[in-house]
Amino acid sequence: MSVLDEVIAANEAYAREFGDKGELALPPARHFAILTCMDARLDPAKYAGLSEGDAHVIRNAGGRASDDAIRSLVISYKLLGTSEWFVIHHSDCGMEFFTNEVMADLLDKSLETAALGENGFHDVGAGPGSSEGHNIDWLTIADRNLSVVEDVERIRDHPLVPAGIAIYGYVYDVRTGQLIEVPEATAAGAPV
Amino acid sequence: MSVLDEVIAANEAYAREFGDKGELALPPARHFAILTCMDARLDPAKYAGLSEGDAHVIRNAGGRASDDAIRSLVISYKLLGTSEWFVIHHSDCGMEFFTNEVMADLLDKSLETAALGENGFHDVGAGPGSSEGHNIDWLTIADRNLSVVEDVERIRDHPLVPAGIAIYGYVYDVRTGQLIEVPEATAAGAPV
Repeated sequence: MSVLDEVIAANEAYAREFGDKGELALPPARHFAILTCMDARLDPAKYAGLSEGDAHVIRNAGGRASDDAIRSLVISYKLLGTSEWFVIHHSDCGMEFFTNEVMADLLDKSLETAALGENGFHDVGAGPGSSEGHNIDWLTIADRNLSVVEDVERIRDHPLVPAGIAIYGYVYDVRTGQLIEVPEATAAGAPV
Repeated sequence: MSVLDEVIAANEAYAREFGDKGELALPPARHFAILTCMDARLDPAKYAGLSEGDAHVIRNAGGRASDDAIRSLVISYKLLGTSEWFVIHHSDCGMEFFTNEVMADLLDKSLETAALGENGFHDVGAGPGSSEGHNIDWLTIADRNLSVVEDVERIRDHPLVPAGIAIYGYVYDVRTGQLIEVPEATAAGAPV
């Protein structure tokens, strides 16, 4: 069965048991949002106890407070009433295993998938590549706790983020499933 | 119980039943990624049948192919080997209910949450606001199917996206839980 067929079959099963979820309102019932990583091992609905309708979930590579994540968070509170936000990075994140320079060089060489060895990612594909990777900030992570602190501070300091929003900083441990607080981040995200 | 306490309690329950999920590998086992909206009613793991470890999930306001979503998708295939991507917008999306101008004007007036009435969002808060909203493209949606087509085309045409990746375009119906294909989008996202 192809991935596409599997997804459609799983969706049909979900829709058959949909129940009264079609009545849910647009604004999140529990008035909060989570910004976290796209990593396949993370299921924020499961690790944070969300049912459909509860909370906004924003995800990107690293769970970073990119301009786009901030666009989403501002829409989340200004139009849809969230007032507490979680920034949740995680252990063993792929974003810790490369730098902007490594990524741009890999893309220069080819657009095929790189291999991950003991010394980081290395290219195994044939060209052509593209130099476009040099124009992108890949938002890699050098220090996990520091990246949470920086992202909470970036959100807290944004001119469109009101002082009354609480912002919590956590790291998710992919080995245990546990959320571990980054106290300096949570402190930096406290409502003013 | 506060939201924070509820999330931590739910996480403790999840971690207690974590089983062997701590052994999952970093690259997605099923080699695909989903780009979808942050909307609270959407649970992509449930609507598409994902277990932890299966697939990357990227979410923002609207499920749009923003620069940041493309950053994440390029990392997804180049470093972690995904080769099929779903772009999934949805019915009753908040992004259909305002424009860049409306959002910037609302933020000009105040940083408090707006109200949604019959004629769209209107401000009910006290100032001060911020003019910073005029500098952001909010990526609103005027036509749901068209936005899927445009986003699939934007990804397909990106210089860092290889021709061999399959990109599927769908709309999730929040009333029924069903995924509905946007054939023009899927056609535009077919591998070359």
